[in-house]
Amino acid sequence: MTAVLDRPDWLSATAPTHPVRWSAEAPIAPRPGVRHPHAPGLEIVGAHAQVPLAGGGFVEYANLDHGASAPALRVVRDTVDALLERYASVHRGAGWHSKVCTALYEGARRPIRDFVGGRSDDAVIFTKHTTDSFNLLAHCLPARTTVVVFETEHHAALLPWEDRDGINVVRLAAPASPGEAVSAVDHALRTRPAGPALLVVTGASNVTGEIWPVTALAAVARARGARVALDAAQLAPHRPFSIRELGVDYVALSGHKLYAPYGSGALIGRADWLELAPPYLVGGGATATVTDEETTFKPVPDRHEAGSPNVPGAVALATACHALAAADREGLAASEQALTERLRDGLLDIPGVTVHSLFGDQVQTIGVVTFTVAGQNSAVVAAALSAEHGIGVRDGAFCAQPFVRRLLGAAGCDVQDGTGHAIRASVGLGSTTEHVDRLVDAVESIASRGPRRRYVVVDGRPTPAVDDRELPVIAPWQ
Amino acid sequence: MTAVLDRPDWLSATAPTHPVRWSAEAPIAPRPGVRHPHAPGLEIVGAHAQVPLAGGGFVEYANLDHGASAPALRVVRDTVDALLERYASVHRGAGWHSKVCTALYEGARRPIRDFVGGRSDDAVIFTKHTTDSFNLLAHCLPARTTVVVFETEHHAALLPWEDRDGINVVRLAAPASPGEAVSAVDHALRTRPAGPALLVVTGASNVTGEIWPVTALAAVARARGARVALDAAQLAPHRPFSIRELGVDYVALSGHKLYAPYGSGALIGRADWLELAPPYLVGGGATATVTDEETTFKPVPDRHEAGSPNVPGAVALATACHALAAADREGLAASEQALTERLRDGLLDIPGVTVHSLFGDQVQTIGVVTFTVAGQNSAVVAAALSAEHGIGVRDGAFCAQPFVRRLLGAAGCDVQDGTGHAIRASVGLGSTTEHVDRLVDAVESIASRGPRRRYVVVDGRPTPAVDDRELPVIAPWQ
Repeated sequence: MTAVLDRPDWLSATAPTHPVRWSAEAPIAPRPGVRHPHAPGLEIVGAHAQVPLAGGGFVEYANLDHGASAPALRVVRDTVDALLERYASVHRGAGWHSKVCTALYEGARRPIRDFVGGRSDDAVIFTKHTTDSFNLLAHCLPARTTVVVFETEHHAALLPWEDRDGINVVRLAAPASPGEAVSAVDHALRTRPAGPALLVVTGASNVTGEIWPVTALAAVARARGARVALDAAQLAPHRPFSIRELGVDYVALSGHKLYAPYGSGALIGRADWLELAPPYLVGGGATATVTDEETTFKPVPDRHEAGSPNVPGAVALATACHALAAADREGLAASEQALTERLRDGLLDIPGVTVHSLFGDQVQTIGVVTFTVAGQNSAVVAAALSAEHGIGVRDGAFCAQPFVRRLLGAAGCDVQDGTGHAIRASVGLGSTTEHVDRLVDAVESIASRGPRRRYVVVDGRPTPAVDDRELPVIAPWQ
Repeated sequence: MTAVLDRPDWLSATAPTHPVRWSAEAPIAPRPGVRHPHAPGLEIVGAHAQVPLAGGGFVEYANLDHGASAPALRVVRDTVDALLERYASVHRGAGWHSKVCTALYEGARRPIRDFVGGRSDDAVIFTKHTTDSFNLLAHCLPARTTVVVFETEHHAALLPWEDRDGINVVRLAAPASPGEAVSAVDHALRTRPAGPALLVVTGASNVTGEIWPVTALAAVARARGARVALDAAQLAPHRPFSIRELGVDYVALSGHKLYAPYGSGALIGRADWLELAPPYLVGGGATATVTDEETTFKPVPDRHEAGSPNVPGAVALATACHALAAADREGLAASEQALTERLRDGLLDIPGVTVHSLFGDQVQTIGVVTFTVAGQNSAVVAAALSAEHGIGVRDGAFCAQPFVRRLLGAAGCDVQDGTGHAIRASVGLGSTTEHVDRLVDAVESIASRGPRRRYVVVDGRPTPAVDDRELPVIAPWQ
């Protein structure tokens, strides 16, 4: 439902009695949204949550921030809740519940490996998230490895290789086309110093949603004796893919983008470098023997998973992977594609709005659209979308500052605050046509007339000068 | 309830028709258990779960493995479930749910800081667990720091300092008394090379449950210009304490031992070393600016929390801390103490059972008791406690191999498999007098007559040769 509650006059056309506190003009037409069709079992938690508007009233939350973090699947939450009825220590615990939880935790690797089309001998290491996965991989690189990475990557994929002893990083400029990307990688690998090499590349950009030519890049890398690490944080929730078909060596992903926001991600891939490296963290669980003279460590995966693991996180991630794998993923991708086109086309029709992209129409995208509004501060636009329209987007540089700076510069946009600043809308299982239409209508209104309310900066963020919204109390300590 | 289900003949005194599959002798008398009294709000999830026995039938799970991982508090699970209704990205997300989750995540630091009696300017960094917290602290040590640590520590506190450039580790032998511990630390700090120093010490041993003389150790450390890091993983769930009163500088703890098993722990303490160190993980969230030339990082806590955080984990930990802080902790400690004495006294009365301790009667303990049974393999004893009595304990060296080896050697016990092997029973909010009595009765039976069933080694662990138990299906991918 999308009606605004507690505001029976919300749809009236009469002039507002208190224009600062409320606008008579409906921010959205309360037409029903069409959730894109998908397989049963992909219901999300909080699908119809109501959020307050700054002037009063409530509206269904339009979560267009799936690219940052996605809501939990209901089956994920239910599975974790069921697990907690039998939660106990994993591995060395001798009790029945320890056996139950160990089977769950160790078993969780398989659906994740299957989900990414991993080889049977690929290691699956549980991490906190993609950032942690790439920091782990960076920790495991052999000496004298050359890492090749485009400046367009998320900081999680761009930065973990820097300032490590014996690692040589080649940061490539944003390519103008997929073909240029392949050529640039080929050149960088061909001219590298002797030694191993790793290409790190995203499956889909978290800024533009553009799908990168991973198969072609992996073929070039293989030909040059390099390995490939795929940042699948954005791709995995939205497109089926396979490690084997893409020809990559490692995949990193995050549960919080994959409808399993319980603090677990994974690094999946070839075990050899991981086996040879010292443990990622040092402590219990990773150790084999500890004496006064020396400490020896277990093989992977235990080697890199010291400490009691996040059992709910691992089980949540596996459950989400299993649920997605069982769904009609091609159909899901098609409906997300339709929703994304509706979003992009709607924004492109608005005078003053620039939708940013690197490759133009040369590639497909996932449901991520980054845009700016001429003459409007992106942070204020994002704040207004939330306060006046109940829409959640992200603004800033999306942890990809070099790329966002380049995109804004190329489009002749103002690079606010030195780090770049744009607005990103992203769709997923929680999105409906109504959410998308509401965003397009709202941006159109802001682009032509500016936000309706006045905004002041509080704690570095634009906030309505008058704001009736109160944060809900969710935890007992709040 | 403690009755065995589906076995109406369970209490009969007739001879077994199939002695390998079942024994006519009741492993436990089904008397009601008395859960130790505690404040409302500390109900645990899965309190009365039934588990199967190897010969058939079910019994209430006696979880005597709280020292490894504790069940979730109901209020913790309920709070996480409520949060998930509004889950969205934290920090830069502009939507309402992002504001809700950011307030929850950032707000979660306060109840945790309060729970440990932290100073107002102490940093609270979310980690995965105690192991992660100490690895973070090790990462942040200034050059030329001397780390002083007893060999009796958990591997998580013992090992993270080893093999780090510029860090000098002094590993002290197990002291014979609290006074000797203080003298040994004083000597080690007095004779250290010039430079900073850190004493790492547990609040309560995860092997013997013995409470260490932290106040006296911290006083000596302070006098010698050293800092103190407290491993509160075992202490925090069972005893109130205060950073300020103890005079320590850092506290590490784990949610999974603190009734919040959602994959989060914390490092709480002085911010200065943490501010000066490079980020623990490199990636989004920790970065301030990223250009072609350089990357700058944010101050703590963001500096060491790269990547999208585990919001449920942080909120779970804060909720558990808040619930415990609001309870009658002295009363809770007293009732756990009574339960522990019942457990220890019961075991001490059994011929052939050795209860291991370092300081003897010189110190108080939390509810952790480690023991061995003469002539019995500890792993088999633990397997029999599970398969024949529905009791969960842990066997092995409890991630404290040097200490367990020393204890077993001092007691003249066989050091199995080179790493030491004992049995640990540990109580907590899920424990009842019936659980403790069941354990004592079962150990008495095993000590005098051995296990009732035959055990074979499967995957390195003793398992009943005939075993009717089937793992429950909890996740849809199982």
